[in-house]
Amino acid sequence: MFENQQVASDSEADRVIMFDTTLRDGEQMPGVALSAEQKVEIARNLAAVGVDVIEAGFPAASPAEFAAVQAVSRSVEGATICALARCVESDVAAALAATQGAKRRRIHVFIGVSPIHRQAKLRMTPEQVMQRAVAAVTQARAHCDDVQFSAEDATRAETPFLQQICAAAIDAGATTINIPDTVGYTEPWEYQAMMETLIATVPHGSHVRFSTHCHNDMGLATANTLAGVRGGARQVEVAINGFGERAGNAALEEVGVAISARAERFGVTHGVQMAGIYTLSQRAYAAFGAPIPPNKAVVGGNAFAHESGIHQHGVMCDARTYEAFTPQSVGREAHQMALGKHSGRHAFHARMAALGINFPSADEWRWAFDHFKQMAERQGEVNDAGLIALARSLAPS
Amino acid sequence: MFENQQVASDSEADRVIMFDTTLRDGEQMPGVALSAEQKVEIARNLAAVGVDVIEAGFPAASPAEFAAVQAVSRSVEGATICALARCVESDVAAALAATQGAKRRRIHVFIGVSPIHRQAKLRMTPEQVMQRAVAAVTQARAHCDDVQFSAEDATRAETPFLQQICAAAIDAGATTINIPDTVGYTEPWEYQAMMETLIATVPHGSHVRFSTHCHNDMGLATANTLAGVRGGARQVEVAINGFGERAGNAALEEVGVAISARAERFGVTHGVQMAGIYTLSQRAYAAFGAPIPPNKAVVGGNAFAHESGIHQHGVMCDARTYEAFTPQSVGREAHQMALGKHSGRHAFHARMAALGINFPSADEWRWAFDHFKQMAERQGEVNDAGLIALARSLAPS
Repeated sequence: MFENQQVASDSEADRVIMFDTTLRDGEQMPGVALSAEQKVEIARNLAAVGVDVIEAGFPAASPAEFAAVQAVSRSVEGATICALARCVESDVAAALAATQGAKRRRIHVFIGVSPIHRQAKLRMTPEQVMQRAVAAVTQARAHCDDVQFSAEDATRAETPFLQQICAAAIDAGATTINIPDTVGYTEPWEYQAMMETLIATVPHGSHVRFSTHCHNDMGLATANTLAGVRGGARQVEVAINGFGERAGNAALEEVGVAISARAERFGVTHGVQMAGIYTLSQRAYAAFGAPIPPNKAVVGGNAFAHESGIHQHGVMCDARTYEAFTPQSVGREAHQMALGKHSGRHAFHARMAALGINFPSADEWRWAFDHFKQMAERQGEVNDAGLIALARSLAPS
Repeated sequence: MFENQQVASDSEADRVIMFDTTLRDGEQMPGVALSAEQKVEIARNLAAVGVDVIEAGFPAASPAEFAAVQAVSRSVEGATICALARCVESDVAAALAATQGAKRRRIHVFIGVSPIHRQAKLRMTPEQVMQRAVAAVTQARAHCDDVQFSAEDATRAETPFLQQICAAAIDAGATTINIPDTVGYTEPWEYQAMMETLIATVPHGSHVRFSTHCHNDMGLATANTLAGVRGGARQVEVAINGFGERAGNAALEEVGVAISARAERFGVTHGVQMAGIYTLSQRAYAAFGAPIPPNKAVVGGNAFAHESGIHQHGVMCDARTYEAFTPQSVGREAHQMALGKHSGRHAFHARMAALGINFPSADEWRWAFDHFKQMAERQGEVNDAGLIALARSLAPS
C-alpha cells in the first residue's frame, strides 16, 4: 500500500512503538463509559492491527475500572498491557494487581512537573515531586521490568527541573520516559527542540525510550507527535479517532498514515497494519457513542469523497490527482463521488453510465444535466434514486 | 485574552492576512448546498469577526453560484470579496462580473502545476500550463488590482517549474501567490522549506504576498499553515470548523488560536477577533447541517470539558492546569465539569454544593459518592437531575 515505507530503515532504532491510550485517556471523553466487555473487544481490535502497547485504564479510579483492566490483562494477547497510576503507593499497587494476568505488562506512573501543576494542584515543592516520582518508579520496578514515567505537563515545565526528574526516574529504573503536552500548548518546532535537548542532556537519556503524548487543543497533536519523532522519540502515544480529554489525543490513524505515506521524510517505521484502521475506527466510534465527523482525516465519511466537478474529473482521470494516499491503504473502499451542485458533466455522465442510463442525443444529455444541477441546488447531494427518477422523467410517456 | 499577543510586532510586515474559504472550498463538502441567503449571512459573520478576505464562491460553476457570489459582493462590507476562476477566459469573466458590486474585490485564478495534474487532468505541457496562467492573470489584472494566482497541487510539483510559473504570474500582475497543498500531502518541515525557497528565489518574490492553503488529509493542515507562516507566508487560507473537500481545510479557529496564544513563538499578528469565533462556528455548523464533533479543537462540545477526577480537581484549583487558553478567549462560557465515572470526590462535592446539597455526615457523603460512581458506570455522564435524585434517595422518607 505505502510503497515508500520500504525506503525507511526497519532497524529497531528506527522503529516507533505505537502506544494506544484509547481505553484510558480516550475513555476520559465526557459521557463515555465503556464496560469491561467493550474494553476487551477494543483491546483485541487494537492488538489485531499491531499496536505495541495498550493502555487499558487507571485501576485506582474505581472497582469497575480495576476489573476492566484485569479483564483486558487476562484475555488480550499480542500487545503489552499497560495500567496508569499516580505516584501514590496504593495506585501503583492497584496497577500491579490489575495487570497481574498479562503476558507482557507495563506500569505507567505520572506526576505533574510544571510550576502550575506543582503549586496549584499538587501543592508540593519540586523536591517533593521528585521524591514521589522516584518512589513510584522504584515500587513499580520491583515487580515489573517495563516501567514508564510521565512528566505531566512537561511542555510548560522549567527545562532544568524536567531534566532532573527524568534523570531521577531513569536512575530509579524507568525504561520509557514520556513527555506529555498535557494541555495541547506546544507547537512542532518547540516540541522537537525540547525532545532533542532532553535526549541529549539527560544522563542515560539515549539508553531509554522517549515518548510523545500530544493533545489537540490547537489542532497540532499529530504534527507535534511527528515533531517529537523528529526530535528522537521512539514511542508515540495515540488514540483511535483522536479520542481523549477535551479536544482529544493525537489520532492513531493520522500519525500512522503520515509516518507510512511520508516514510522518506520521517525515516522511521511502525508496526500498525494500516489496512485494519478503518474497521477499528468505526467500531470505536460505535462503542464510544460518538458521531463520526464527516471531515475527520483518514476515517471520516468524506475523507475520500469528491464533490466538486474539477476534483471528480481529476479523480476519474487518476485518483492520485486529489488523493495523497489510497482509501484501500487504510482499509476503505474506493473513493466516493458525491453528486451535488459542484459536480460537473464528467462525473454526471460517468455515474449515469454506471447506472446503465444513456441518452440518444446531446440535447437530452444537456437537458438532463441542467435538471440534475437544479435538483442539486435544491437538495444538496443527488443519490442514485434521484438520477434514475431524472432519467425516467425524460423517457417518452 | 491572549496576553502574549502584544509581544509580537504589529507592523504590516508581520501581519498575516486571514483569507477565509468557507463559502468556496468549505461548501464543496459533499451534500452541502448553501443558498445565496445563507452565504450572505455567513459572509457577514466572517466580516464581523475581522476576516480580511472572503472567498465567496466559484461563479462559473452554475447560475445559482454566480448569483450567490453577486449577492455577497453587493451586500457584505468590511472585507475583500474574492471569486475563484480556472485559468479559462469565460471563468475569469464570470468572476469579474459576479464581484462587480463589491467595494473591494479580488479575482483568484488557479491551475494545476504538478506532473499528475498537468498530465492526467489537464493534458497540457508545462508551457501550455504557463501560458494559461499568464493569460488568466493578465485578463483579471486588466479589470482588478487585486489578483491571486494559485499553483494547484504545488507541494507535488517540480521546484523549477513552480518557480517559473510563480515568476510568470507575478510578472503578469499577480499580487498574491498561493502555494496549495491540494491533497494534504506535505508535512510542516517540508512546507516551510518550500515557502522559504520560493520567496527567496522567485524574482520579485519578496514584493508579493505568499499564501498557504493546506488540507487536512493527514491531520496536518493547521501545522502546515503555521509552517508556511514560519517560512514567510503572510496570508493563510482557512475555513471555519475546518470545512472543505475530503478532510477539509485548515481550521480558522485553530490557526487563529495558535498564532494568538503562542504569539511569542510565531511573531506575527492577525486581525480576527477570536472572541467571536465560537458563535461563528456554531452558526456555520447549523448552516452546513454538519454534526459538531465533541472533540473538535476550540469549538467542539468537549474542548473545555473535564471529566477525569484528576483534571477536574486541577481545574478547580486553577483552570490553567488543564487549559492552554481560556474558553472566554474564543467566546465560550467557562469550562464545564462533566461528572462521570472518572470524576473524583472534589468535583462531586463542588457540584453538589453548587446545587445547594449538603450531607450532615462523612458517612453520608461516602454513601452518596459511591452511589454516584455506580450511576456513572451505568449511564456515562450524570447530570444535575441525577444528582438531585441521588440526594433525595438519601433523605429520610
